[in-house]
Amino acid sequence: MNKLSSLHCEACRSGAPLVTQEELQEFMLQIPEWCLEIRNNILQLERSFAFSNFVDAMAFSQKIAELAEAESHHPAILTEWGKVTVTWWTHKINGLHRNDLICAAKTDLLVS
Amino acid sequence: MNKLSSLHCEACRSGAPLVTQEELQEFMLQIPEWCLEIRNNILQLERSFAFSNFVDAMAFSQKIAELAEAESHHPAILTEWGKVTVTWWTHKINGLHRNDLICAAKTDLLVS
Repeated sequence: MNKLSSLHCEACRSGAPLVTQEELQEFMLQIPEWCLEIRNNILQLERSFAFSNFVDAMAFSQKIAELAEAESHHPAILTEWGKVTVTWWTHKINGLHRNDLICAAKTDLLVS
Repeated sequence: MNKLSSLHCEACRSGAPLVTQEELQEFMLQIPEWCLEIRNNILQLERSFAFSNFVDAMAFSQKIAELAEAESHHPAILTEWGKVTVTWWTHKINGLHRNDLICAAKTDLLVS
């Protein structure tokens, strides 16, 4: 099994394949803290991270933004006092691409 | 009428007064771009701002974070590609305090 966090996002076009259920089951083992959510009929990956204040939460959001730019793939980041909630999905295919699993794994690495 | 954006937040304790309907009607005239939303039975102030990419959106979120620290009052900031959604409310009183209206007005000033 490839280590997700060592992979990089590929350019994603409309019509690119959604992650299969088999892939999802296999790869979710590497990112056990992430939850699957369905919103507006779109499957998404989500995790919340706890911090002790707003500044630390925002600093983490900034790190995620830098990861997103590096991978040219962008999540939704909800920053609150002491909490950051990150949601990855792929707009172009209205669901989860392997890129989302890769970015979730890379997000986990940002936690110091 | 006091200009909201020129005021500063006061320390807010549990039991502090919620904004009255009269105050809300008066002050909302100064922040016409903001919407009132009720979530989990809590009245909140919300506005979305559009940007042309993720980096600009994140830079705006960072400015809001600096405002929040300066006022010791913290919103929820949802950062997405090309969009920032800011939500102000006061946890301690489960609703809107005058601080929220002040911070909404100050948020408007951050738009360059």
